[in-house]
Amino acid sequence: MALLFLSTAERAAVWRSVFADAGEEMLVGEEAVSDPSRITHVACWQPPGDLARYRNLKVVLSIGAGVDQIPRLPDGVALARTIAPGIEDMVRAWVVMATLMLHRDMPRYLEQSRHGLWQAHPARPAGMRRVGIMGMGRIGRLAAQSLAQLGFPVAGWSRSGTPVDSVDVYDEAGLGDFLARSDILVCLLPLTDETRGLLDAKLFAQLPKGACLVHAGRAAHLDMAALRMGLTSGRLCTAMLDVADPEPLPADHWAWRKPNLIVTPHVASHTDPHEGARHALEVVRASRAGDPIPGLVDQSRGY
Amino acid sequence: MALLFLSTAERAAVWRSVFADAGEEMLVGEEAVSDPSRITHVACWQPPGDLARYRNLKVVLSIGAGVDQIPRLPDGVALARTIAPGIEDMVRAWVVMATLMLHRDMPRYLEQSRHGLWQAHPARPAGMRRVGIMGMGRIGRLAAQSLAQLGFPVAGWSRSGTPVDSVDVYDEAGLGDFLARSDILVCLLPLTDETRGLLDAKLFAQLPKGACLVHAGRAAHLDMAALRMGLTSGRLCTAMLDVADPEPLPADHWAWRKPNLIVTPHVASHTDPHEGARHALEVVRASRAGDPIPGLVDQSRGY
Repeated sequence: MALLFLSTAERAAVWRSVFADAGEEMLVGEEAVSDPSRITHVACWQPPGDLARYRNLKVVLSIGAGVDQIPRLPDGVALARTIAPGIEDMVRAWVVMATLMLHRDMPRYLEQSRHGLWQAHPARPAGMRRVGIMGMGRIGRLAAQSLAQLGFPVAGWSRSGTPVDSVDVYDEAGLGDFLARSDILVCLLPLTDETRGLLDAKLFAQLPKGACLVHAGRAAHLDMAALRMGLTSGRLCTAMLDVADPEPLPADHWAWRKPNLIVTPHVASHTDPHEGARHALEVVRASRAGDPIPGLVDQSRGY
Repeated sequence: MALLFLSTAERAAVWRSVFADAGEEMLVGEEAVSDPSRITHVACWQPPGDLARYRNLKVVLSIGAGVDQIPRLPDGVALARTIAPGIEDMVRAWVVMATLMLHRDMPRYLEQSRHGLWQAHPARPAGMRRVGIMGMGRIGRLAAQSLAQLGFPVAGWSRSGTPVDSVDVYDEAGLGDFLARSDILVCLLPLTDETRGLLDAKLFAQLPKGACLVHAGRAAHLDMAALRMGLTSGRLCTAMLDVADPEPLPADHWAWRKPNLIVTPHVASHTDPHEGARHALEVVRASRAGDPIPGLVDQSRGY
C-alpha cells in the first residue's frame, strides 16, 4: 500500500515525516510514481485527470473538510474527507464570532468608526435573537452548542431533520417554518446538487424582515446578486461571508464597499497538516484492516 | 418605605409600573418628594448632592453594574449595584466577540477590506492562544467559562486569587506570572484606587510581545497614550475597547484611525429596565425584612 500526496510542498514536508515515523509509504507528486499499481490511496484537493492508471486505487482522500470539488469517482474507489478536530473548532469559532458580530451591530459600529462617530444603539439580548443553522453535521452541531450556551435560541435544518441533543432540527419539508423563525441564518451546508444556489432571493424572502446572514458554506450556495439586493432593500440587515464568488474577490468588487456586509478571505477553516496526516494514516490502516474508513463520504448524497 | 428614582423618563416608566404592580411606593425625581423622611432608598447613576436631607435613607442603589461613579456614602447608608442577568450576559457576549475578533485577526481583515485585498493569513488554533481575564466577578467567571468552552486556555486574576471552577486564578502577587502567560488580556476589573491606571506601559511590557487587549472595564483603568504607543511599537498586536477617554471620543481622535484598534461606543452592557426594577424591588423587600441586600457593595473595597 502506498499513498500518493498531491498538495503543497509545505504540507508534504509534514506528511512525509508523519508517514516515515509510522513506517508507511508515501510518494509526493505524480512524477515520483514509477509503478502506478502500488498506489492505493491518493490525498489531494482535486484528483488528477487520469485516475484509471492507479488500478489498485482504494480511496481518494480530500485534504479538506469539503468534497464537492471532487468529481464522481470510478466504481470501487471510496471517497473520504479529512476529519480533524482543528478544522471543526476553527469553523465553529468563526461562526460564533460572525454571529456575535451581527447580533451586536458590528457592521454599523465599524461604519461609524470610519466617520469618528460615537453613538450607541439599543441592543437586543441574545435570548431575543433566534439563530437558525443550516447543516447539522459535526460543525453545525458544535456551533449550535456554543451559541445556545451564549443564550441564543438555536434551531437547525438538515435534509433528514434528525434531532440533535437539545436543538430543534427542522427537516426538508420544514424549511419555510425554519426560515420564518431565524433572525440570524447560518449556512454550514455541504455543497450538493440540492443545496447549490439555495441562498437566493426566494429564500431570503422567507426570513423575518431585517434578518442577518452568516455564510461559512460554499460560494456556490449563494446568489451574490440576491444578497446585494437584500442588503440594499433592507430585507437583510447585515451579512458576514467567508466565501465569495469569485474568489479572490477583485479589489473593485461591490462586496468590499457595502457597509452592512463583512467579508473574510476564506479563513474560517484551515486544516492543520499534522492532523491531516494523522487522519490519512488512520485511513490507510483502516483500508488494510478492512475496518470502516474514517471520514467516508456517501458519494450518492455528496457528503 | 419609599424609593426615589433618579434616571431617565424612559426607565422611570418601566420602574413605575413594576413598583405599582408590587404595591411599593416609588417617587420619580427629587421635585416629587414632599416629605424627605419617607425616602429609604435612592436608585440612581450618581446620587444627588444633598443626601443628608433623606435622614431615613438605608440604601443607595446604582442602576448599573458599576459603582465607581458613586462617592463614599454617609455611615449607615448601604451601597448596592444592580444585579441583572441581562447585563452579565451582554457583557459576556461582547467579551467573547472581541476575544474571537482579535484571535481571528479581524482588525487586519477589516483593514484589507478597505483596500479590496483578499489575502488569508495563517490562523492559530484556540488551544494555542492563552486568554487572561482580569476581574473574576460574576461577568469574569461567565466569560472564562464561555472562552474555555471554545478551546482557549483561560486563567483569571483577582485580588484574592480565589479559585473559580476549573480556571486557574492568580492573586495579586502573581500578576507578573499571569501577564506573562496572557496572549489576549481581557479587563473586566471594577474601578478602585488599586486598579485605576493599571493598564499602562509597565503592565503591557509584562505581556508576551504582540499580545492583544480586550477592555470592557472602565476608561480610567487604561492609559490611552500607553495603548497608542504599544499598538504602534508592536508590543501590542491589536486591541478592542468598549470604553475610552474621553467619552464620547471626538471625531478627530487618533483611536478611530488606528487600524489595529477597534472601538465600540460603550455598548457592552445595557441594563434592561425591567430587570433593574425587579432587582430594586428585591432590595426594598430585603431591607424591610432585615435580609441580606442583593448586590451589596463593600464600600471599603469599592466593589
